[in-house]
Amino acid sequence: MCELLGMNCNVPTDICFSLTGFQARGGATDVHRDGWGIAFFEGRGVRLFLDPQPSCESPVAEFVRRYPIRSLNVVAHIRQATQGPVGLENTHPFIRELWGRYWIFAHNGNLVDYSPDLDGSYLPVGQTDSERAFCLLLQTLRNQFPDGEPDPSALHAAINDFTSGTRRFGTFNFLLSNGGRLFAHRSTELHYIVRQAPFAVAHLKDEDVAIDFSEVTTPDDRVALVATLPLTDNEVWTPLPAEHVVMFTDGAYCPG
Amino acid sequence: MCELLGMNCNVPTDICFSLTGFQARGGATDVHRDGWGIAFFEGRGVRLFLDPQPSCESPVAEFVRRYPIRSLNVVAHIRQATQGPVGLENTHPFIRELWGRYWIFAHNGNLVDYSPDLDGSYLPVGQTDSERAFCLLLQTLRNQFPDGEPDPSALHAAINDFTSGTRRFGTFNFLLSNGGRLFAHRSTELHYIVRQAPFAVAHLKDEDVAIDFSEVTTPDDRVALVATLPLTDNEVWTPLPAEHVVMFTDGAYCPG
Repeated sequence: MCELLGMNCNVPTDICFSLTGFQARGGATDVHRDGWGIAFFEGRGVRLFLDPQPSCESPVAEFVRRYPIRSLNVVAHIRQATQGPVGLENTHPFIRELWGRYWIFAHNGNLVDYSPDLDGSYLPVGQTDSERAFCLLLQTLRNQFPDGEPDPSALHAAINDFTSGTRRFGTFNFLLSNGGRLFAHRSTELHYIVRQAPFAVAHLKDEDVAIDFSEVTTPDDRVALVATLPLTDNEVWTPLPAEHVVMFTDGAYCPG
Repeated sequence: MCELLGMNCNVPTDICFSLTGFQARGGATDVHRDGWGIAFFEGRGVRLFLDPQPSCESPVAEFVRRYPIRSLNVVAHIRQATQGPVGLENTHPFIRELWGRYWIFAHNGNLVDYSPDLDGSYLPVGQTDSERAFCLLLQTLRNQFPDGEPDPSALHAAINDFTSGTRRFGTFNFLLSNGGRLFAHRSTELHYIVRQAPFAVAHLKDEDVAIDFSEVTTPDDRVALVATLPLTDNEVWTPLPAEHVVMFTDGAYCPG
């Protein structure tokens, strides 16, 4: 299996602290050695860093961890391969465009005997079940809303409907973002935390590193983090509700 | 206007030497200060680095220049904005998927009053004429070949036809790759060189840096480079034929 990390905020925020703990799991403190990737939205644009090397040894990961890219929406993934060989084309997150926005998707799980009927509007480049599911999701959304992005509640409901139909193939923890919102779905393991005033000190589980968020935030900041397993050992992380897509907007939790 | 740099090879090759000269033009030895980007194909996968900062000041550019990513197909761009504000979503090269392959596009020029009729299969995320042209190109190819990628000569001819219809809107120097081939079109300025045995010493125009390619190659290597302006001052760069799409495959020049 893999690990997921997502962030959704109301002010552009860097994710360097969380990445320090997350990337250690890519082969150092945990077994996910088959590549890693991270996408940062900046406005409508997106920066996508991918590396089929283990994140704990990747020069790209080291660079990204030290370079404070400030973003409202981030999706990251470290991979332990199930379907599809280790390679750049099978490294999450995946990117496509729909309705004139980039969409980013990362999956932790395994969809068995999963060969969806794709009409050619989105086709997988690699060999993973994950990319096939992402292609079918975007195809479904485009067919359902041919005139463009619907209002957030209709979009949320459509993503939830799609997910209900896909769960029967297997484990389907995922993160999805179009730069405006972050969608998260838990099959087995996915936790979240919303940090807001009063901010406190957080201490990583995977490395002896701490940060006092009160020193680097303003009272109006709100940051939601979603991770397969809690990243800190002195904060309360909450499991997402199972088998239901949650939407995060401006750092707020919207179960829908 | 902007500058383009492309590479197509028969063995995975790093582009660090050429990037050293090219990136200096992003605000240091030349005026292109409005962002830069580079895409490296590795198999069917692609790594895309984008930065709206000038390449001569960009930490991402510095990282990429020092990190030898070996690739068969590279497309790079430094921007001097004409249409669309400076921002990540307007930074070239652009990425989309067609026929289960990633396609990468970068443009140097200006298409005036260019509002093509897009059917929604590919829509621009930013505000540039360049991204609109890329979307129309992929839409045209997909409609023309709905069953998947045609043979190389048919693909080459279709891209050339599309380009003929677009040139009337203005300057349309571009580079395009799907990871297998590199397509290049010159409206005004675009030069190429094919390096093969016997390899010699090359010296950059923009910085006092030289490399002896005979020390880092094998006799079978072949590398085609395409750049707006020659990058070296002791080699012969040839202007591409004007108003005709050239295809590069395995480092070889195929005028079609």
